Amino acid sequence: MSLDPKIADRLKRSGDGLVPAVVQQHDTGEVLMLAWMDDEALHRTLTTGRATYWSRSRGEYWVKGETSGNVQFVRHAALDCDGDTILLKVDQRGPACHTGTRTCFDDDVLPVIEGS
Amino acid sequence: MSLDPKIADRLKRSGDGLVPAVVQQHDTGEVLMLAWMDDEALHRTLTTGRATYWSRSRGEYWVKGETSGNVQFVRHAALDCDGDTILLKVDQRGPACHTGTRTCFDDDVLPVIEGS
Repeated sequence: MSLDPKIADRLKRSGDGLVPAVVQQHDTGEVLMLAWMDDEALHRTLTTGRATYWSRSRGEYWVKGETSGNVQFVRHAALDCDGDTILLKVDQRGPACHTGTRTCFDDDVLPVIEGS
Repeated sequence: MSLDPKIADRLKRSGDGLVPAVVQQHDTGEVLMLAWMDDEALHRTLTTGRATYWSRSRGEYWVKGETSGNVQFVRHAALDCDGDTILLKVDQRGPACHTGTRTCFDDDVLPVIEGS
């Protein structure tokens, strides 16, 4: 079994065959992290309800939380208008970030002039 | 003037020199879109408060809303734990998507088995 061809046809991958997935906590709206998927990772995610990514650093599939226990139960998935980004709304158990913070965006705030 | 070297040193770019930016409505938490930045786009975003991206399709800088009027006023910016993703919280005027929908993720929902 592989990714539904009707979905695969709409997917626009980068040169490396990957698509970025934005991961958001389904109820609070927090953006937790960004990860990468190929067709197989998306297939596994949609058919198991457990967020599964392609690890670019380790070169392997990665069920989020498999070792840490900080699992992501998928509640909603969508493709964007260009088919080149995935949005996952999940129920995150424990911290999403490997540093132990709730999200991967908690620690490095950049100075910005407020637009108007 | 270019991007603050203290920020540039922490930025991990893809092979094409770009970093994905997740764009979120600051008050409702909606994920509006994903776009791409190089160092100069990030510099312009942080120093003008107007979200500015690198258009991969047109090969040029792109101040969001410059032609459509659907501007993004930046309220918050952060780098993730790996320095390879940017999160922008913005005040979006009008629809974020060029198709006229509020977000780029409104129209193509994928079927998913709920995880448990």
